[in-house]
Amino acid sequence: MTNPTVIELALDLIGRPSVTPEDCGCQTMIAERLQAHDFHIEPMIFADTTNLWARRGSEGPLFCFAGHTDVVPSGPEEAWHTPPFEPTIIDGYLHGRGAADMKGSLAAMLSATERFISDYPNHRGSIAFLLTSDEEGPFINGTTKVVDTLMARNERIDYCLVGEPSSTQSVGDVVKNGRRGSLTGELRVQGIQGHVAYPHLGENPVHKAAPALAELTQIEWDKGNEFFPPTSFQIANIQAGTGASNVIPGELYVQFNFRYSTQVTAEELVKRVHHLLDAHGLNYQLDWTYNGQPFLTDSGSLVSAVTKAIATVAGIEPALLTTGGTSDGRFIAKMGGEVIELGPVNATIHKINECVKVHDLQQLEQMYYHTLKELLA
Amino acid sequence: MTNPTVIELALDLIGRPSVTPEDCGCQTMIAERLQAHDFHIEPMIFADTTNLWARRGSEGPLFCFAGHTDVVPSGPEEAWHTPPFEPTIIDGYLHGRGAADMKGSLAAMLSATERFISDYPNHRGSIAFLLTSDEEGPFINGTTKVVDTLMARNERIDYCLVGEPSSTQSVGDVVKNGRRGSLTGELRVQGIQGHVAYPHLGENPVHKAAPALAELTQIEWDKGNEFFPPTSFQIANIQAGTGASNVIPGELYVQFNFRYSTQVTAEELVKRVHHLLDAHGLNYQLDWTYNGQPFLTDSGSLVSAVTKAIATVAGIEPALLTTGGTSDGRFIAKMGGEVIELGPVNATIHKINECVKVHDLQQLEQMYYHTLKELLA
Repeated sequence: MTNPTVIELALDLIGRPSVTPEDCGCQTMIAERLQAHDFHIEPMIFADTTNLWARRGSEGPLFCFAGHTDVVPSGPEEAWHTPPFEPTIIDGYLHGRGAADMKGSLAAMLSATERFISDYPNHRGSIAFLLTSDEEGPFINGTTKVVDTLMARNERIDYCLVGEPSSTQSVGDVVKNGRRGSLTGELRVQGIQGHVAYPHLGENPVHKAAPALAELTQIEWDKGNEFFPPTSFQIANIQAGTGASNVIPGELYVQFNFRYSTQVTAEELVKRVHHLLDAHGLNYQLDWTYNGQPFLTDSGSLVSAVTKAIATVAGIEPALLTTGGTSDGRFIAKMGGEVIELGPVNATIHKINECVKVHDLQQLEQMYYHTLKELLA
Repeated sequence: MTNPTVIELALDLIGRPSVTPEDCGCQTMIAERLQAHDFHIEPMIFADTTNLWARRGSEGPLFCFAGHTDVVPSGPEEAWHTPPFEPTIIDGYLHGRGAADMKGSLAAMLSATERFISDYPNHRGSIAFLLTSDEEGPFINGTTKVVDTLMARNERIDYCLVGEPSSTQSVGDVVKNGRRGSLTGELRVQGIQGHVAYPHLGENPVHKAAPALAELTQIEWDKGNEFFPPTSFQIANIQAGTGASNVIPGELYVQFNFRYSTQVTAEELVKRVHHLLDAHGLNYQLDWTYNGQPFLTDSGSLVSAVTKAIATVAGIEPALLTTGGTSDGRFIAKMGGEVIELGPVNATIHKINECVKVHDLQQLEQMYYHTLKELLA
């Protein structure tokens, strides 16, 4: 069974050049269709970010589709085979910025919801859409603020399906059932600037810090667990020096990032890093940014429903993984409900010539439909 | 005995804003005065750099005053108490850019030479001036090219007195009788760029290099000797990363500098660094710049003459040191003659409100005069 609506909706959405934090009317178009199906529409504008909270029904359980209408920049348009914001179908693939991340998913969510309501107008519980236009940006005024607003009024999502492109080879082969935590440190090691000809009058912060950095890169922070790979530490940026070859730098700047499992907490990592730097006698300042706690949905109604929907539509069993970058799922997980991510194949996301198989979008639409059916029919 | 000429000449020279590689007529002014004292004048222009070779006499030994007419930029003029290029005498101090480095020395050289020729018109040997306008710059088209020109025609300096500000507390307390070598390395360690969420797909060059850098900073390269402090290694610049906190850098750049004694050679240092980096299994590229070999004039007629001149004028015995930055002496030393540096107190060089004691310049002029007398009278 194929559904032409999902492709029409994807074409409409991809044609809007909604580079973060722009929305270009995507949410209005979706909201109008949802309103026609008795959703209560609640736009939530925070600063430059357009968000939408739309809900049908007031009973529990509350199932929510979550996603973003913004896309990353196209890069040089002339490098694309087809214009990035003129969606084009070639040989069964839909090309355009956002085709896979994640306007294809939004189209599938909307189409599946419309079909489900048409088939089961008196479904149990509630259905909601949580959309933002800053998932690809600084994620300050997007999903996190919507979640704060909902929590403040005790509105709580029980099951959340995020449309991030989770699949690797064929749609549904991977479902993300959690994400690692992300913690960033900005380290400034103080030395004393001077002329290299007078090393005794200066104090080189690179020299002071080098043994500590070497040690930090060798540490096994944990071994991971059944659901998470081991916690990893990566130095992303390092800088010292004036550019001149005869000046001892006065300060060393190092920015590093942890992706951490549920075997450690951010507090433990912070404590260990400070302990190590102190042990090396460094004169330093260290500022931390807590990007997101790790979360895990290892079993429950949502995982069962999605797994069964994938089996029904594609005849495969998904791998449940927690690898990869962060997503807005981390903010929604704070509400305590079940959160998983299921979306198209991610091979071309953020790249030139981003595309998605037309057939995959139609399968995804059916997987979403069957998930709704499992949980709310 | 005081000589008003030295101050008049210093005022004239400092009034010319000859920031590298500009000369602003300094050398022409000096050349005209030397020509009036039977010097043969030979301007040597190389690219943007103005050089002067002036010689009186054709016999040996050849005594040469060496120096530079260029100065470093003044920095913000409003930060100066007096305009940097309007020389001003306040409370016995001559203020202005170049007062100490080294237009005061040039004035003293010229005045001393004129007095000496007037007193000893039939002196033995020859007197020369070697001036450049790029000592503070890239030192590509300055003294080094003049030296090459002289060596190509077998003209050789026996005694060279460089006017760099060698003194620390009072004029003549320190004579530089050599300089360390300078060797710069530019290291590029290759890794594999990637997303920090997928560390197994990337290879962090900062992590790969950190233990090697830690080891490099701990090495004792030599213990120095009677004339040189131990060889020192300093990382002057380090850089890696795209600026984003979620990207593993693809390359690490490290620029480091050796100041080395006569206990090691540049070749030995290069070999040791490569050996260490190879032992750490790094994938790297390393480019070397040989800034200058170390040189040493530990005894001889020139050191004796200068030491005696200082004792005569100031009643002190100079310390013979090889510390500090490089100077054009390294290029002149290639000729095999004796090279020393004697100039004013260096406390304010390259700084806002650069200044020199008027009395010190007059003493310096006498020290130069007595040096000439010792060697050529």
